Amino acid sequence: MERPPEIVVLRLGHRPGRDDRMTTHVALTARALGADRVVLPAHATDATETARDVTDRFGGSFVVETTDTPRDPLHSWTGVAVHLTMYGFPIEAVTDQIRTETTTDPLLVAVGSEKVPFDVYEAATYNVAVTNQPHSEVAALAVALDRLYNGATADREWPGASKRVVPQETGKRVTDVE
Amino acid sequence: MERPPEIVVLRLGHRPGRDDRMTTHVALTARALGADRVVLPAHATDATETARDVTDRFGGSFVVETTDTPRDPLHSWTGVAVHLTMYGFPIEAVTDQIRTETTTDPLLVAVGSEKVPFDVYEAATYNVAVTNQPHSEVAALAVALDRLYNGATADREWPGASKRVVPQETGKRVTDVE
Repeated sequence: MERPPEIVVLRLGHRPGRDDRMTTHVALTARALGADRVVLPAHATDATETARDVTDRFGGSFVVETTDTPRDPLHSWTGVAVHLTMYGFPIEAVTDQIRTETTTDPLLVAVGSEKVPFDVYEAATYNVAVTNQPHSEVAALAVALDRLYNGATADREWPGASKRVVPQETGKRVTDVE
Repeated sequence: MERPPEIVVLRLGHRPGRDDRMTTHVALTARALGADRVVLPAHATDATETARDVTDRFGGSFVVETTDTPRDPLHSWTGVAVHLTMYGFPIEAVTDQIRTETTTDPLLVAVGSEKVPFDVYEAATYNVAVTNQPHSEVAALAVALDRLYNGATADREWPGASKRVVPQETGKRVTDVE
């Protein structure tokens, strides 16, 4: 399936302490499942550091950006903007349409933390639900990237990596890349 | 695609405080994406409470169990056991095989928190990676349930719900179920 010219993941909010791990997992999931860039709230310092550190070690050209105004990148986005929310249309109902539009247009995927203000719903091209049940923004992001663009494939290049996992039937093997 | 007679998700560890949200998201993701049951460490009290509360309100027959010995359900499992780990074989390489085996056998999906002891790798029927990159056990669980059994479908019944989301193009709508 065709990939958009760019995939950006936007974290719409962050509560220091409480959201540290969730925001970190949003950033790492974005990277592992094929996004080009993540934009995190500036005060998500732990998540920013971890995501950059993982990129340094495991490679790829993933970019970790920060912003003091986390909803602005959505409001100024000129491509297709998908807001993941349990209140939206089921992803299976809009997958084909989003894929078609993003063959030429870049994609922004926005995920909230807690209460998402109404302007986010209005600014999004699509409000999309991964099931209409309450669960996890990390799970929703992963499923969305996988369903839209086969994000969870292991068949992706990670140039510049210093570490590489060698898949094993049992146990762990990590090699140093020369 | 055929669904196993039972899908159980097992959380292998939990550090109170630090893992509260992650364990909660593991449990809610298991429920929303079609598992029948989750087994959580007994000291994951917040996650247990939240998962039961969501089930009460949003319905379904999802069961939240707890155990003082979180690896025991894996060791005593007689069906197919999938351990999600970035060190395993890519999910795309084992999907068909797991699907075939679980048409008759129940499935247990085990996800770790931090360091997973070696006995887990040995006890698993399959050590499975959702990409061989570091990201999130919640993301891995979501992708695995979705790829194996179309877990992220919105087309599932939730009997006994008192609340139901009505999908909207913009905004939120939740109705009380009579």
